Amino acid sequence: MTMKNDTLTIAVLPGDGIGREVMPACLELVNAATTMAGAPALAFETHNAGAQYYAESGDALPASTLEACRKSDAILFGAMGWPDIRFPDGTEIIPQLDLRMELGLFAGVRPIRWFPGLPRVLTDPRAEQIDFVLVREQTEGLFYARGRGEIRNDEEAYDTMQITRSGTERVTEFAFDIARQRKRRGKPGNVTCVDKANVFQSMAFFRKVFDEVADRHSDLTKDHAYVDALALNMVKKPWTFDVLVTENMFGDILSDLAAGLIGGMGMAPSADIGDKHGLFQPAHGTAPDIAGKGCANPSAMFLSAAMMLDWLAAKFGQPTLADAARLMEGAVEHTLSTKLAIPMEYGGNANCAEMTRSVISSLSAAR
Amino acid sequence: MTMKNDTLTIAVLPGDGIGREVMPACLELVNAATTMAGAPALAFETHNAGAQYYAESGDALPASTLEACRKSDAILFGAMGWPDIRFPDGTEIIPQLDLRMELGLFAGVRPIRWFPGLPRVLTDPRAEQIDFVLVREQTEGLFYARGRGEIRNDEEAYDTMQITRSGTERVTEFAFDIARQRKRRGKPGNVTCVDKANVFQSMAFFRKVFDEVADRHSDLTKDHAYVDALALNMVKKPWTFDVLVTENMFGDILSDLAAGLIGGMGMAPSADIGDKHGLFQPAHGTAPDIAGKGCANPSAMFLSAAMMLDWLAAKFGQPTLADAARLMEGAVEHTLSTKLAIPMEYGGNANCAEMTRSVISSLSAAR
Ligand SMILES: CC(C)[C@H](C(=O)O)[C@@H](O)C(=O)O
Ligand SMILES: CC(C)[C@H](C(=O)O)[C@@H](O)C(=O)O
Repeated sequence: MTMKNDTLTIAVLPGDGIGREVMPACLELVNAATTMAGAPALAFETHNAGAQYYAESGDALPASTLEACRKSDAILFGAMGWPDIRFPDGTEIIPQLDLRMELGLFAGVRPIRWFPGLPRVLTDPRAEQIDFVLVREQTEGLFYARGRGEIRNDEEAYDTMQITRSGTERVTEFAFDIARQRKRRGKPGNVTCVDKANVFQSMAFFRKVFDEVADRHSDLTKDHAYVDALALNMVKKPWTFDVLVTENMFGDILSDLAAGLIGGMGMAPSADIGDKHGLFQPAHGTAPDIAGKGCANPSAMFLSAAMMLDWLAAKFGQPTLADAARLMEGAVEHTLSTKLAIPMEYGGNANCAEMTRSVISSLSAAR
Repeated sequence: MTMKNDTLTIAVLPGDGIGREVMPACLELVNAATTMAGAPALAFETHNAGAQYYAESGDALPASTLEACRKSDAILFGAMGWPDIRFPDGTEIIPQLDLRMELGLFAGVRPIRWFPGLPRVLTDPRAEQIDFVLVREQTEGLFYARGRGEIRNDEEAYDTMQITRSGTERVTEFAFDIARQRKRRGKPGNVTCVDKANVFQSMAFFRKVFDEVADRHSDLTKDHAYVDALALNMVKKPWTFDVLVTENMFGDILSDLAAGLIGGMGMAPSADIGDKHGLFQPAHGTAPDIAGKGCANPSAMFLSAAMMLDWLAAKFGQPTLADAARLMEGAVEHTLSTKLAIPMEYGGNANCAEMTRSVISSLSAAR
């Protein structure tokens, strides 16, 4: 896509709980960073969705919100869901899953990087070198079963997982793309297929299609791992990982685990990418236990917005947006490494507002 | 079951790779421990199975071996599988899965305990208090799909997971039983249901049946966790876990991850328990990279045999077998904590024979 003349429009969905706290903080930071980088300003348009909005309106993901997401240039998403607010049949309100399916956001990109200043979780000092990307397939796999599951006579229940050639090809191509970009920055340029091909047909198929795609990328390397062994190695030697690609459910589990290695959900950004659309959200949820207290760590939201700027920069040929992304990442890193502000979840006393102020004031240091 | 007059017979399946190395070491230790505890000697009968036997005979799990397992009082299992030896259709040789199904070994019991002397993986000193049990359902869940999966036109593949009321009830009852035994030793007496009930019907059903069973155990407590959040908490605060019960595939992933927290597969024992049978095996595999060198750490095999002695003691009313189990566990602990021998995988130079000698010589210290 070439550069557009008009302003880029961002659909902003703060959602529920701490999503509503970290989102305004994030918009403030993005504005400051784009200004400093001389990047075009973004037009933020806030839309309703989520459990709390459902409680008010009876609609968890209004058609107007979905439509606005479709028309936007990118979607910035806080967090959605709330323990006590459910659909009449008792199921949880999770519009993020609907958005993935509706907008074809097939690649869940979860960069896992340790930042200086963060508490180290693993004793091995090489844990400070953790820097890998987990790519989670997000439109099929076991999640294909959502809404299709079956309970028979209160005796048996079934859910079917689906792996398609096209779904596997596109997510694998995506993973090799990321590996190539990383290789330019000196990373190994390797993609690991994480599966359970020793037991399941669908997983053997996933591996087979992965291998076919890998053959087209002779400039990069590949390997395979069984998901159980990979989970073990994720605590034993995550610093050896480069790019991982895996099925939806496995990716869900592994990405939370991976976030645990770098200080938890408060530091883990994510992007849900499709052919046309990109949605960017922190990996954390709505955190009902701390919501409303203003003490959430907005770092994951900030880093997710930086991923959005990078994606927009590439998509619309606007390198200054990537500059703004570097400023934001650098400012988070500076804040943490200099201990200018320490998030409450790491034993510090910086609440959301203080973290935001510190990160914004660190933008110049990141220049 | 009451005590039998005749000797207890153990079907011994060393299997492949390091299974063939740690097994003889283990039998030596069990003999020494039962003698010291004044427990009845066990009759060990070794049987063929596994990939290497398949290469010789064309049979991975001979009917005679299966029959011997059925007739035995317990099964002691090394490890099976070998990278280059596969069935003609390319699938791996994993008789352990067949044994689980054939013998109805529905509960995969994976105790996770940190031993003094082991390298600590997590920086938080509370990691030394890690002591929980993961109970993995082993006869259904996603593994129901094994042998039933479908690939259509090289375009789509499907695997279906099954959760049954009876399967969930029995494994949940089993988990509450373990929690009750642990409570007697001062543990919390809590069972956590690990599922993905927010997305899947089968998992919502699992949770529902779990809750019904939990209601029958008012002396114990229960809670729930989504599998992704649980994976995160497993690195954040595993010392808060007591007993976890979960679906087959989730349990496979989580038990490997859990082993990673206490020094890896070399320390992780396991038991596969059914209504009639019990199979005991280290969580590690055949380790082709080190097999044949005599350097495997036999500790997980030793601890698995101790689980077998405990199970036999309860089943046949033979408390001296439990005494022997305590001696064996104590001897492993003594060996590690005094650094009498340090396994090669932890940077020491004790090979399998030296570890075995040290553990046997530590039996008296454990008395
Ligand atoms: C909210 C939940 C359904 C969701 C998922 O399972 O995908 C979340 O865990 C995630 O990783 O985005
Ligand atoms: C060998 C393999 C098929 C097996 C499993 O997945 O169950 C193993 O990982 C285990 O945990 O016992």
